[in-house]
Amino acid sequence: MKIPWAMPYIGEEELKEVIDTVKSTWVSMGPRVKKFEEMVAEYLGIKHAIAVNSGTAALDVALKALKIGPGDEVIIPAFTYIATANAVVYQHAKPVLADIDPKTFNIDPEDVNEKITKKTKCILPIDYGGQAPDYDALLEIAEDHNLFLLEDGAEALGGEYKGKKTCTFGDLATVSFHAAKLITSVEGGMVFTDDDKLAELCRIIRNQGEDPNRKYYHPVIGHNYRMSDLHAAIGIAQFRRLPEILEKRRKIAERYNEGFKDLDGVELPYVSEHVKHPWFFYPLLVDNRDKIIEYLNSKGIGIRVGWPVPIHKQPAYREILKGEQRYPVAEEVAERIINLPMYHAMTEEEQNYVIETFKEAVNKFCR
Amino acid sequence: MKIPWAMPYIGEEELKEVIDTVKSTWVSMGPRVKKFEEMVAEYLGIKHAIAVNSGTAALDVALKALKIGPGDEVIIPAFTYIATANAVVYQHAKPVLADIDPKTFNIDPEDVNEKITKKTKCILPIDYGGQAPDYDALLEIAEDHNLFLLEDGAEALGGEYKGKKTCTFGDLATVSFHAAKLITSVEGGMVFTDDDKLAELCRIIRNQGEDPNRKYYHPVIGHNYRMSDLHAAIGIAQFRRLPEILEKRRKIAERYNEGFKDLDGVELPYVSEHVKHPWFFYPLLVDNRDKIIEYLNSKGIGIRVGWPVPIHKQPAYREILKGEQRYPVAEEVAERIINLPMYHAMTEEEQNYVIETFKEAVNKFCR
Repeated sequence: MKIPWAMPYIGEEELKEVIDTVKSTWVSMGPRVKKFEEMVAEYLGIKHAIAVNSGTAALDVALKALKIGPGDEVIIPAFTYIATANAVVYQHAKPVLADIDPKTFNIDPEDVNEKITKKTKCILPIDYGGQAPDYDALLEIAEDHNLFLLEDGAEALGGEYKGKKTCTFGDLATVSFHAAKLITSVEGGMVFTDDDKLAELCRIIRNQGEDPNRKYYHPVIGHNYRMSDLHAAIGIAQFRRLPEILEKRRKIAERYNEGFKDLDGVELPYVSEHVKHPWFFYPLLVDNRDKIIEYLNSKGIGIRVGWPVPIHKQPAYREILKGEQRYPVAEEVAERIINLPMYHAMTEEEQNYVIETFKEAVNKFCR
Repeated sequence: MKIPWAMPYIGEEELKEVIDTVKSTWVSMGPRVKKFEEMVAEYLGIKHAIAVNSGTAALDVALKALKIGPGDEVIIPAFTYIATANAVVYQHAKPVLADIDPKTFNIDPEDVNEKITKKTKCILPIDYGGQAPDYDALLEIAEDHNLFLLEDGAEALGGEYKGKKTCTFGDLATVSFHAAKLITSVEGGMVFTDDDKLAELCRIIRNQGEDPNRKYYHPVIGHNYRMSDLHAAIGIAQFRRLPEILEKRRKIAERYNEGFKDLDGVELPYVSEHVKHPWFFYPLLVDNRDKIIEYLNSKGIGIRVGWPVPIHKQPAYREILKGEQRYPVAEEVAERIINLPMYHAMTEEEQNYVIETFKEAVNKFCR
């Protein structure tokens, strides 16, 4: 059996939307981007959605809109995808790391508190694998210290925290529609906010910093981060599938949980009682990870490690974070985490095969 | 009659490529991006083409590959699209402006010479409207002072300078495939180079700075600048049309030249004997530009002014270029330039209507 780690769910609906778009001859940012923005904003119950061409671009737009600049500090988790940190560096601000919670793998509010200085401008948590961090605590810290909170919800469309949807926390929040994500616009992302002025500024930054009422007149430094209508066409068709996709992933996660519940030598995913988990990642902690992956790969099973190297150990950050302290939880999780396959087309037979093969691997290498 | 300034030429060929791509279910960066890169590289006679998601991204990748950083100076024309300057600012380097040639509207090599300091690292000329600047002079300056030369060839696919194709000059060159460009991949761009190491670094930077042999391991600060296969599908179909598109634009330019040859009060486009002009812009200099545009618009004719505001007068650059001197040629050109409609589907009747209406406007307002 050949089981990929992820597989986009692209079919007739997507094809139809794309054909309609090309036939309209309007393929760059236009009515379909607007429609996609409106659909997602309505679903999230938020006022503004600004579509861009990647989740990374969404973070850059958000930080520029918050006017984060040289000398400012932004607190991010030590355990995150590189883009969270890079977006801070694009502003020539400093990413300041905080360690993570050993159960949710999300930023630890206590360590955030420790890292606040006079230069701190923003807290930038992620929702690991889609699961929300402790937003009550993080928002309280932000309020106490008069800091912005920007939610990097790249993986979190469809999640909730205490009944409020993820991708809506803080001053601004972002999502990614990368091809491996829950739903995709091939490449893409969005910025979300209830603040009219921030939304307007995000739209300007996305479109080369151009004044919307004056062609080639640029009040701010922006970028070309426009989403195309061709990509939005895919996003619109995908978005209609979201409930179905979330339900399927929930079922796969349950099946995995059930399959592994008596398995020694592995830590199952912890799900906080306060969240609804969209299951972008199904993460387990194991020892001897390399051997386990090798074994699973040899049996045709694709595995992702999100992520094997925390930010302070990335070679790109050696200079930037020189003299940085250690982050013991992030380091241990990075060494032990493993993400099992999950995709919409996954059959029960495929799920059972993953469960049985993973159990064999754990029994061989984790005892 | 309703005549837009530009109109993308998207038809059955593009639709077929897009359908094939969606049906293959591989829509993100993959085989079609590779094919598009190979087609363009072969046409240009250059070793490497690295496709990205915009012309702006191409400039950012190129400057990052050249390791331009804080404290460095990059000499750019005072008269250019904002992205040329922004890309320098993304590196927290300083854009240093040089004035332009009053005939080609391209960077003036003599003024480049004046602007070189110990901090200068790179000369970044554009090909205005697709027409090459004086590359012999610019390359000599770069060599004499040990500077990089990066060609911003956003508008220049299909052009030549002394028999060598534009988009191939200097250490690195870029192009844009924005929807209004000669050919389009909806949004997109490429970086070109003959240097294997620079090409490898550009590919890494485009893909989040990730080591191509080690997932989630990032030796450099990159970005998500990947072109999608869906966009490349459009690019591939468009690229096949390039000879036809160039020929059509040449004919429109000739017809305009012929139509305006006896018209007083207007300066016709100058074409250097050393270039082949791909005619992205058909630029004229006029007085009373606002009135002329108003008149043409009232007659249903779309006009572009590329560009009305030189870089040092852009509000986004007020702080960055504080105390900057004046650029008299750039300022005059920005005040007087006007770009007439040009697109593949343009009929002779439409061209004649533009010619006659423009003549009326000039006779009314430029005497």
